[in-house]
Amino acid sequence: MKLKIAVLPGDGIGPEVTKEAIKVLKAIAQEFDHSFQFKYASVGAVAIEKFNDPLPKKTLDLCKSTDAILFGAIGDPRFDNDPSAKIRPEQGLLRLRKALGLFANVRPVKAYDTLLAKSPLKRDIIKGTDICIYRELTGGIYFGEKTLSDDGNHATDLCDYTREEIERVTHLAFKAAQSRKQKVTLVDKANVLETSRLWRKVVTEIAAEYKDVKLEFLFVDNAAMQIILNPKQFDVILTENMFGDIISDEASVIGGSIGLLASASVGEKYAMFEPIHGSYPQAKNLGIANPIASILSAAMLLDHFKLFEEAELIREGVERSLKLNITTPDLNTKYEHISTSKVGDFIEDFI
Amino acid sequence: MKLKIAVLPGDGIGPEVTKEAIKVLKAIAQEFDHSFQFKYASVGAVAIEKFNDPLPKKTLDLCKSTDAILFGAIGDPRFDNDPSAKIRPEQGLLRLRKALGLFANVRPVKAYDTLLAKSPLKRDIIKGTDICIYRELTGGIYFGEKTLSDDGNHATDLCDYTREEIERVTHLAFKAAQSRKQKVTLVDKANVLETSRLWRKVVTEIAAEYKDVKLEFLFVDNAAMQIILNPKQFDVILTENMFGDIISDEASVIGGSIGLLASASVGEKYAMFEPIHGSYPQAKNLGIANPIASILSAAMLLDHFKLFEEAELIREGVERSLKLNITTPDLNTKYEHISTSKVGDFIEDFI
Ligand SMILES: CC(C)[C@H](C(=O)O)[C@@H](O)C(=O)O
Ligand SMILES: CC(C)[C@H](C(=O)O)[C@@H](O)C(=O)O
Repeated sequence: MKLKIAVLPGDGIGPEVTKEAIKVLKAIAQEFDHSFQFKYASVGAVAIEKFNDPLPKKTLDLCKSTDAILFGAIGDPRFDNDPSAKIRPEQGLLRLRKALGLFANVRPVKAYDTLLAKSPLKRDIIKGTDICIYRELTGGIYFGEKTLSDDGNHATDLCDYTREEIERVTHLAFKAAQSRKQKVTLVDKANVLETSRLWRKVVTEIAAEYKDVKLEFLFVDNAAMQIILNPKQFDVILTENMFGDIISDEASVIGGSIGLLASASVGEKYAMFEPIHGSYPQAKNLGIANPIASILSAAMLLDHFKLFEEAELIREGVERSLKLNITTPDLNTKYEHISTSKVGDFIEDFI
Repeated sequence: MKLKIAVLPGDGIGPEVTKEAIKVLKAIAQEFDHSFQFKYASVGAVAIEKFNDPLPKKTLDLCKSTDAILFGAIGDPRFDNDPSAKIRPEQGLLRLRKALGLFANVRPVKAYDTLLAKSPLKRDIIKGTDICIYRELTGGIYFGEKTLSDDGNHATDLCDYTREEIERVTHLAFKAAQSRKQKVTLVDKANVLETSRLWRKVVTEIAAEYKDVKLEFLFVDNAAMQIILNPKQFDVILTENMFGDIISDEASVIGGSIGLLASASVGEKYAMFEPIHGSYPQAKNLGIANPIASILSAAMLLDHFKLFEEAELIREGVERSLKLNITTPDLNTKYEHISTSKVGDFIEDFI
């Protein structure tokens, strides 16, 4: 198979982890006789520095002309504490999601047997956890109108949802549940929010088309507890943009390190793959960033093109590295000197 | 001291846990020669049944004429899955908060040494945790304008904050931090939301008046992880209404049972005390509901009137009951037959 892949390394540890994912993809191409072509472009704080724009037109055009996008990370603390900054790195990611219509963010959360001891949660709570979170990604309070009064003392953000926005991600979630454990849990705050009541209504209607899938409801505050108290009760979690941001990061603690979690952002035409961790600027260039989330994002990219065998091989390589303790310091208390690139080398060699 | 206390038992397990709190308050009154007068009123689903109004005028008037309010719980599943219901139990609680100006919800989260084993989190992660969450309670997306289009296919909720709304709860949080570990962590989503950027600006300004207190920032998605990964890093957490709802329920897992957590909702003139758990309708009238959150809410009520010795005695009684395993089944795997009222009896006797 021939694939043209846009690579957007972004900020902080983005470039170093993405490099390892590409190393692994190249090994796959060689092993399975595919041709993967990688095209680089800037996004985020680095793009602001170079082009004064977190999503330069060139970057967006490139993304539109390729088959898939591999994304690193975004964000820079220099912008976070400046409430008056008009241009921010995160806008690059948000505009990209919107422009490419990436309406569903898919985040699998698994407890690896070899890593059970690393989790802050007790072994019997997490063993066997296998959740897939479907987060709506181009609507809600992220993209609704924002206002700031002239005197700067009154701000608003609008959370906004239409039936169509809810329907399309809901169908994906139910389809996923069909080939999993046949359960979808809708996380909302329908006892307070009008948008949540719309979610509940639309999702209930769509559920009727998937008779083999069970639908449950959970208020977001309760969900934030249940994910920790009993993560095994979940199969597919479906939720709106902001709740999905919070709940999926929370769920990442189950696996023992956020450095393990990959995600796919998909739409009608485009698809982007990225680790769920952020730019982690404190770790930049220290060789301690865990590349596995990025490498598993590359596996999700292969899944997307139905290269299941290839994706599986990457996952086996990852599990092997975890088992042999070939891991970065976030997971490794024994060998401190195993760096980002050594983990990538190991998985490359494995392939 | 003479106190007139409004008692709003509400729905589900609300009445049974509130009964135990009153038992304990009566014991305190006797022991310390106070005069506590209790006046009952309905709120929530029970008020809808009787008066077709989740917050009847009589209830609100009573609250305004008393020194403090003891609240049970609110919510009934019959309303949750009916997106078209115009009258809902939760409106009773939300209108009460707004009408009484209860702008700050204070939620202490502690890991009791005797209960470390009950938590889904590992002992060394939680031992020593002592957090106090200040949640803004009368603003944000809870109270902003809501719309639903005529065809029912487009809904909005407005998140709305003014400087004044942020200032008053921020002062309370910083004052609390001064007599604790001198640290405030603001939880927001300033990389996306305009309201969060306003929070960051206003809180930063106010922090300058409290030179002895350190201010830190955390994005809400990261906070949802950090609370589980390393709860001991926190002292006071300050946040807006919706994030506070999620984060404080999440934090409740640290202590091993949400049935332990009390809260105070305070404003300029009024103060209300309630367990943070919900109405838990499945447990209603089974004698298994944990009354400790309600009993500790009564202790917070006494603190509010500077009856510190009395409040402390209640807390000692609670700790004793935990130590001796005189607890409801949520905490008790040994003696299944210790009921809600037996826990209350024990603490009453202790006093
Ligand atoms: C960087 C930020 C804007 C982004 C989000 O909130 O969506 C990130 O946290 C994520 O989850 O991908
Ligand atoms: C019942 C509900 C409206 C309420 C809230 O969301 O504020 C509850 O969850 C709470 O935290 O007190």
